[in-house]
Amino acid sequence: MSSSNSDQRITLAHGSGGKLMHDLIKNVFLSNFDNPVLNILDDSAIIEIKDASLAFTTDTYVINPLIFPGGDIGKLSVCGTVNDLAVVGAKPLYISCGFVIEEGFDSVSLEKITQSIAETAKKAGVMVVTGDTKVVERGKGDGVFINTSGIGICTYPLPQEIEIGDRILINGSIGDHEIAVLSARRELGLNIDIASDCAPLGDLISEILGVSARIKFMRDPTRGGIATVLNEIVEDKDFGILIEEKEIYVREQVKGACSLIGFDPLYLANEGKVVVIVDKEDAEQVIDTMKTNPLGMDARIIGQVVESPKGRVYMKTEIGGTRIIDMPVGSQLPRIC
Amino acid sequence: MSSSNSDQRITLAHGSGGKLMHDLIKNVFLSNFDNPVLNILDDSAIIEIKDASLAFTTDTYVINPLIFPGGDIGKLSVCGTVNDLAVVGAKPLYISCGFVIEEGFDSVSLEKITQSIAETAKKAGVMVVTGDTKVVERGKGDGVFINTSGIGICTYPLPQEIEIGDRILINGSIGDHEIAVLSARRELGLNIDIASDCAPLGDLISEILGVSARIKFMRDPTRGGIATVLNEIVEDKDFGILIEEKEIYVREQVKGACSLIGFDPLYLANEGKVVVIVDKEDAEQVIDTMKTNPLGMDARIIGQVVESPKGRVYMKTEIGGTRIIDMPVGSQLPRIC
Repeated sequence: MSSSNSDQRITLAHGSGGKLMHDLIKNVFLSNFDNPVLNILDDSAIIEIKDASLAFTTDTYVINPLIFPGGDIGKLSVCGTVNDLAVVGAKPLYISCGFVIEEGFDSVSLEKITQSIAETAKKAGVMVVTGDTKVVERGKGDGVFINTSGIGICTYPLPQEIEIGDRILINGSIGDHEIAVLSARRELGLNIDIASDCAPLGDLISEILGVSARIKFMRDPTRGGIATVLNEIVEDKDFGILIEEKEIYVREQVKGACSLIGFDPLYLANEGKVVVIVDKEDAEQVIDTMKTNPLGMDARIIGQVVESPKGRVYMKTEIGGTRIIDMPVGSQLPRIC
Repeated sequence: MSSSNSDQRITLAHGSGGKLMHDLIKNVFLSNFDNPVLNILDDSAIIEIKDASLAFTTDTYVINPLIFPGGDIGKLSVCGTVNDLAVVGAKPLYISCGFVIEEGFDSVSLEKITQSIAETAKKAGVMVVTGDTKVVERGKGDGVFINTSGIGICTYPLPQEIEIGDRILINGSIGDHEIAVLSARRELGLNIDIASDCAPLGDLISEILGVSARIKFMRDPTRGGIATVLNEIVEDKDFGILIEEKEIYVREQVKGACSLIGFDPLYLANEGKVVVIVDKEDAEQVIDTMKTNPLGMDARIIGQVVESPKGRVYMKTEIGGTRIIDMPVGSQLPRIC
């Protein structure tokens, strides 16, 4: 499939195991993901592993629109999965790519998305080692959905026991991804100049794990935002979390969009952020290390683990009050990842 | 989510990272897939691996209809992935499940499919250790798509060098799956009493690998059928393959359906079959071993590796002629897996 032919479209036969599918795999996927493990094109990729603990994760990406400021579904599908590996203390190594393509999807877009996967994988230090392609009839899908599953090797013991006084850190502003996607949809009349934070966090995480042995827990606050992550941390636990609104960095554009449409930035999805719980003694050093990485320049300590109220997340507001931050029922927007 | 409430339907909020999604995961997925690795519900599953080669594979299942004689998308999504691991000589151990659910899909069907995954995983000896759920708007998907990725440990050195005279084996009849799915669709006016062969092949494969050290290659002939697998084997190779039509077992119902609609059984998808290439000395023993397993009762030697014509697959027909078996352009039916 040549990019010069912009009229080429995906047909059902491209997903059917015959010559057209073989050509698609060879010309689009193999040429972009080129590596010795994938090139064997066997039913499974074979990976050598030394005695180790493996991390294994999966995510399907159904984001709408496929391209948004700061990224596209290809970049997102690598970042999301490598970040899921990195936050459990694993070095991301291998990913799979499973495409579900709607009949009629244009081949040039497919190739661009594939290139985006390849570039992001290279940046994140992972290899695409196995894949799958399915095509569904027009109106039975939506452009393209991508599943990426990932394997990493655990290098850091997580989670560790969370204690009262531990600090809650995040590597920058919140809500950029969800507002960028919302704006790209142009549904709510929003046209906000903001890019998604979509980025692979493996290097930043590896750097902070190198300076502190007392990082207790990490998670990337995607769907449901930091409110969801913090609630998951305290659920059924003997401690609570108190965050400080004034320490949480929300860009002006995100603040503006939220006030226009009634969204709360705490519940907005991020794709290049990590919430870190670390011993209070090491918190400043972890922040300093984050700040040396372009993905952590706006890192902040946003709160701490408190004795009570147990099992709840509270926020001290900028005007001095306190409010409960609940688990959301649904998220604010569907299909933001 | 209780099965007693048959009116419950999946909404966009079920895919949005909030409480509804958490309830869905807890009540439907965790309760069915219950195991210590998954139950941690971290972003990645953690698996202990001794010094080994790993096999890693992925497949997304978009079959239509979701339920068909002999199986459903849940059973299929486990069988397809564990079979991809087994045919490269790996013992399947862990799988992931990524759901893309169409808004409005009924929760009872989702639970049944989930139970089917759980039952098949148990039968196949694999654990579902990680998962993901996305919901797309009505008309942007088709009921449910399921991606399963799988990890296995390599226990047998494959592929080995294929030599002239090696025998081609298969563990039974061909085409059952595709004709069962076609019949279930009722599109072509067919109503054929045949069940899909959908089954996990790990045990059968492990048994034959136990009796011969000279199995050279295995592959499961899914989309594109045995014609595609055999063509992939000879592609750019210094040998050819000759198969014998009279040795290939096609059930009467499949023969009848094929002659009615003009399909060739060699190109029909299977979901419980494995094509095996083995040294001629071991062929009979492998067949005998296959026959001791319920999934191999109709095992046959269907052909052999020949010196010429190189790179081609030929078939000696029942009436004594010879015909070229080409790689198909597309498969005969879309969405059969």
